Amino acid sequence: MQTLSTRHLLGIKHLQTSDIGLILETAKEFKEVINRPIKRVPSLRDITIANVFFENSTRTRLSFELAEKRLSADVINFSSASSSVKKGETLLDTVNNILSMKVDMLVMRHSSPGAPDFLSNKIKANIINAGDGTHEHPTQALLDAYSMQEAVGDLTGKKVAIIGDILHSRVALSNIFCLQKLGAEVLVCGPSTLIPKHLPSLGVKVMHDVNEALAWCDIANVLRIQLERQQIKYFPSLREYSLYFGINKAMLDKLDKEIVLMHPGPINRGVELSSDAADSEHSIILNQVENGVAVRMAVLYLLAQKN
Amino acid sequence: MQTLSTRHLLGIKHLQTSDIGLILETAKEFKEVINRPIKRVPSLRDITIANVFFENSTRTRLSFELAEKRLSADVINFSSASSSVKKGETLLDTVNNILSMKVDMLVMRHSSPGAPDFLSNKIKANIINAGDGTHEHPTQALLDAYSMQEAVGDLTGKKVAIIGDILHSRVALSNIFCLQKLGAEVLVCGPSTLIPKHLPSLGVKVMHDVNEALAWCDIANVLRIQLERQQIKYFPSLREYSLYFGINKAMLDKLDKEIVLMHPGPINRGVELSSDAADSEHSIILNQVENGVAVRMAVLYLLAQKN
Amino acid sequence: MQTLSTRHLLGIKHLQTSDIGLILETAKEFKEVINRPIKRVPSLRDITIANVFFENSTRTRLSFELAEKRLSADVINFSSASSSVKKGETLLDTVNNILSMKVDMLVMRHSSPGAPDFLSNKIKANIINAGDGTHEHPTQALLDAYSMQEAVGDLTGKKVAIIGDILHSRVALSNIFCLQKLGAEVLVCGPSTLIPKHLPSLGVKVMHDVNEALAWCDIANVLRIQLERQQIKYFPSLREYSLYFGINKAMLDKLDKEIVLMHPGPINRGVELSSDAADSEHSIILNQVENGVAVRMAVLYLLAQKN
Repeated sequence: MQTLSTRHLLGIKHLQTSDIGLILETAKEFKEVINRPIKRVPSLRDITIANVFFENSTRTRLSFELAEKRLSADVINFSSASSSVKKGETLLDTVNNILSMKVDMLVMRHSSPGAPDFLSNKIKANIINAGDGTHEHPTQALLDAYSMQEAVGDLTGKKVAIIGDILHSRVALSNIFCLQKLGAEVLVCGPSTLIPKHLPSLGVKVMHDVNEALAWCDIANVLRIQLERQQIKYFPSLREYSLYFGINKAMLDKLDKEIVLMHPGPINRGVELSSDAADSEHSIILNQVENGVAVRMAVLYLLAQKN
Repeated sequence: MQTLSTRHLLGIKHLQTSDIGLILETAKEFKEVINRPIKRVPSLRDITIANVFFENSTRTRLSFELAEKRLSADVINFSSASSSVKKGETLLDTVNNILSMKVDMLVMRHSSPGAPDFLSNKIKANIINAGDGTHEHPTQALLDAYSMQEAVGDLTGKKVAIIGDILHSRVALSNIFCLQKLGAEVLVCGPSTLIPKHLPSLGVKVMHDVNEALAWCDIANVLRIQLERQQIKYFPSLREYSLYFGINKAMLDKLDKEIVLMHPGPINRGVELSSDAADSEHSIILNQVENGVAVRMAVLYLLAQKN
Repeated sequence: MQTLSTRHLLGIKHLQTSDIGLILETAKEFKEVINRPIKRVPSLRDITIANVFFENSTRTRLSFELAEKRLSADVINFSSASSSVKKGETLLDTVNNILSMKVDMLVMRHSSPGAPDFLSNKIKANIINAGDGTHEHPTQALLDAYSMQEAVGDLTGKKVAIIGDILHSRVALSNIFCLQKLGAEVLVCGPSTLIPKHLPSLGVKVMHDVNEALAWCDIANVLRIQLERQQIKYFPSLREYSLYFGINKAMLDKLDKEIVLMHPGPINRGVELSSDAADSEHSIILNQVENGVAVRMAVLYLLAQKN
């Protein structure tokens, strides 16, 4: 049987292309499972998984929790709001305490880039990075790739535009790595203040005109403007962002071609996407959410074999 | 087999009397179940239920969660405190995201009256309204009706007084609809500032003297003064509210008749109810809590058949 | 079969020595269980346990929750953050409401010393005190005793120093009672402002020099400085506390004897313990965490038999 080349899912950057392939293949099987009336499989019975979220999250935490329950794992949840973090404990101590309770796998979100990497040499449990600051969010990139393949088939030579706030997005970086490994061409588009300077060195095209980006691509992955992180220095106002970079259905329709519209959520309707675009026939946004559970089941299942 | 005429429990107002009868009959069977040593039945195995609480709640959320677990459902919890709601996502997007993860039923509390109705035409899952603002709280009315029947038998012709803050209470409105459908006479009693003007048009008596209300009724359902919502405009002070509308055991005893005392909790002891009244032989307050689990099991079980 | 002499675990003070022995013996069996690949036993199937935490907690709540799940109990969680406590409900009403939902056992943390004792004559469920203010934290003392026995064997005549903030610690008091019942000699060491005046009357030695305390003892149980509770009146600064009472590896090594180092967590590294001490071969800190699950399984299992 094929297995992953790694014990942890820390990011896409250092993942082998064959690992990505194995995860996406396995996810296909789990998607069938979660569409059956009986959605639960015994694969991870007697495996204990801790979901350790040092930052708030809705869909990612729920998606992991459902994936774990569908696999029959024992699940415990930990969020920093009710935690010892406030009492001055180090990250490693907090995690070692949780693991001493015989936890096999750790799903972790943390505000510091590199936090899961830091832990990975120090602990025995498998770590799944559920987002580390503005660094990586590998399961999001994998579910995006899965959803793209479902929509357009093999990604070799396909053109993907990532549009919006690239600078503050962990989704962007993980997507770029994943798509390049799968043979796609990647372009980023947004205000120049929201695009990191090093992206061209990664082999990524940069554009500042959203209509040109849409004309170029087969798939548009639109990121959310992180209202809570924006400062006036990046662009004049949300209204101006929306005027120059917002996407509506008319813009998609006048392209007169097949185009797939994606968004990792939560959507700011009327800012980066109009409602008619988000709800249009181009959109596969809710498929992404559904596929997220299947992809996370695949990741958990495959990593558990490396225990 | 008899089934409900509806796929959702949005409120009591539009529920058929036969639906209420079916729920209360079914709850009787589940009450036997939860009083057995083995309290778990496999009825909702492979059904996934999301408890989505946009407002805080103790007893309602715990009661639903226990009902779901007794029925062997898979349960996920979502509360707005850790949610994307703060990030500007619409209610429909939040709910669609949760449902895309293959959730079959949605138990929802929301501060906006009508939020569950709004969703009910837009989503496939069954919705159970666990309280929408000051509008309805149907499972509370059903467990109240169940507890009343348990105490006094058939409610036809029985006299029920709802006493307290009617204006801010979703419990009052759902109780009025439910009791009228079951043939009871309903009276509301409280300061005139806390009684909505349209109640007489619903066929409800209004009184402002609590002793007269107690003399009139077979059952007194005392609502809590919502300390956190009160403003000085409704009445001078809590102390004055208590003096004019508070109920103590002496008041009940001197009636020299059978009277049933109810309260949906949490009680403000010393405000709307004295401790000796709340703990007296008239009180069925803790029975209400116990019956809540059985009634919610019945609602979930019956709605799951309409999936 | 041997059973406990009590239906509740409120504190160590009134626990019989034979009860402590039974709990520690039983924990040994459960420690084997949680080190097997199949960690779940059906012992508490059909028992419902509510974890009711009126104060925040990480490791204690997770440890209890895992213990309950390993025993196959049904678990519900309640924390005061999302509770009716804010709405002015009494503790007894809150608890009675939870119990009316057919809850068999109550694990409770509360900021008021004596809260679990107060409830224990009033309710039918078994109560396990998971910490009541600065009073007792009995399962911590039991897991500490278990870990000490594991490290040094029978505790009769062994010398244990409890070092740090004794005044604000519920761990200290429970440890003192437990160790004395098991035949150990107990010493406390810390700034005189952080040592309660009545301790000598309990037969406890008091020292103010940490090196002397270390020289005296077989086991040093170092408590955390509760940063969040300290006031300037107890000692000049954290830095000064650390200089006079902090323990590092060099201090342990130069003793040139076997010494066991313990800490209930969370550790303030660099304050009461240096990192090289906490991570040294003397330390059994992570064993304590692991043993916590086994000891709590034993307590829950034995109390359930008294239902």
